Amino acid sequence: MITDKGRYRTFDPDTTGRLALEIARSGEDVVLVHGAGSFGHMLAKEHRLHLGVTEGSQLLGASMVMSDVRELDLEVCRRMSANGLRAVPLPPASCASMRDGQLHRLDLDVFRSYLKLGMVPVTFGDVVRDEVRGLSICSGDQLMAALAREFRPGKVIFVTDVDGVFTADPTQDPRAKLIGTVDQKVLDSLPRTERNVDVTGSIFAKIRYMIDMASLTGECLVLNGKVPGRLEAAIRGERVIASKVVS
Amino acid sequence: MITDKGRYRTFDPDTTGRLALEIARSGEDVVLVHGAGSFGHMLAKEHRLHLGVTEGSQLLGASMVMSDVRELDLEVCRRMSANGLRAVPLPPASCASMRDGQLHRLDLDVFRSYLKLGMVPVTFGDVVRDEVRGLSICSGDQLMAALAREFRPGKVIFVTDVDGVFTADPTQDPRAKLIGTVDQKVLDSLPRTERNVDVTGSIFAKIRYMIDMASLTGECLVLNGKVPGRLEAAIRGERVIASKVVS
Repeated sequence: MITDKGRYRTFDPDTTGRLALEIARSGEDVVLVHGAGSFGHMLAKEHRLHLGVTEGSQLLGASMVMSDVRELDLEVCRRMSANGLRAVPLPPASCASMRDGQLHRLDLDVFRSYLKLGMVPVTFGDVVRDEVRGLSICSGDQLMAALAREFRPGKVIFVTDVDGVFTADPTQDPRAKLIGTVDQKVLDSLPRTERNVDVTGSIFAKIRYMIDMASLTGECLVLNGKVPGRLEAAIRGERVIASKVVS
Repeated sequence: MITDKGRYRTFDPDTTGRLALEIARSGEDVVLVHGAGSFGHMLAKEHRLHLGVTEGSQLLGASMVMSDVRELDLEVCRRMSANGLRAVPLPPASCASMRDGQLHRLDLDVFRSYLKLGMVPVTFGDVVRDEVRGLSICSGDQLMAALAREFRPGKVIFVTDVDGVFTADPTQDPRAKLIGTVDQKVLDSLPRTERNVDVTGSIFAKIRYMIDMASLTGECLVLNGKVPGRLEAAIRGERVIASKVVS
């Protein structure tokens, strides 16, 4: 599984294509999750969709955000099939429902069906109906957690644009050190900054999700997708530069 | 509801935008269905997806067809939201399943949820998991029928690029006459040609679907979406040039 919530404002077709090829070459059964990235977050914030729908005008904004994230997903799926991965997009708006901001139901049977056929289910952060709020945002992390609970995968891999989880923001602080093993104690000790606070929660919430997932899987890694071959090696079970998350 | 299975090889953003505006101005609750058009049929035929999946190579073809029809759907949804319609794309691959080429299950609850919020569910012809065949093609017509059965809409409107159902192909035969009322007897008398035979069935199968649907709705019409105002007038209940389908 991959979630990509880097800070890039644009889609990188070459990196996405290479990552798809690395997954294809591994020959493993994979479910892929990507974030909304720059395609969803700006407009979602503007319309305050993470707080639920209280005004009619938000519905039009929600519709536009849906189109934006689907444009990203289409690009991802095109790069996947161009590299031999049989992508099947499964947008949560059409196969999930939320309850007060939490993923309440995900139609796992639809994921199972396409996996069984030998295809690669692809899902992503999306605007989804919410029993309480009308609409809310379902993050890639919530989807990862639900899928990990159901499928108990051999590996859960978070692909990002730095080598893993650092003691500080590595793009800002030259003294930032890669943390080899991340657990609750490490999380508690990380400095709290406002960076990476988006509509789906901060990096801390993300690591919290990872720690929960680590107990459901053989291995939970955060690694750098910008370094060619690292994802493929990790899927194959080789040791790579990464942070390992443990529960 | 709209299904657009015209013979155009390209997407017409202006007409789509105008039709969206006509629907928005009507103020009615709408579910919109569009075909795959030129975006899906060519590649689907090439990979013989309508016959089910028997070879692994078809799965990659299926993935590409999914991307193609989603590209069309994205264009449709963008034109809709640009004209004030709060589109929510609900692709059948993620909320339906087939059994031996027939639509077996459609998650109508998801359509209901977004309708209730004041949004416009949009679905379309797609490649969908099939319990018997692995994958098969779910046509816009099958979706229309399932939605009509559930929602019993006041009107079912098929929007095409000619004035309605003709005695012969109006683009080929200058003597072709518009048929005011279409029923089973009229269908039986229509000349059988190979034109419009695509992976989802011929125009005869389409009319057969319409006749079945006519019994579930106040009015079932086939009309020309290329004439400005005609769709809007029909939604408002005004008399327009069209074929009326009766059961």
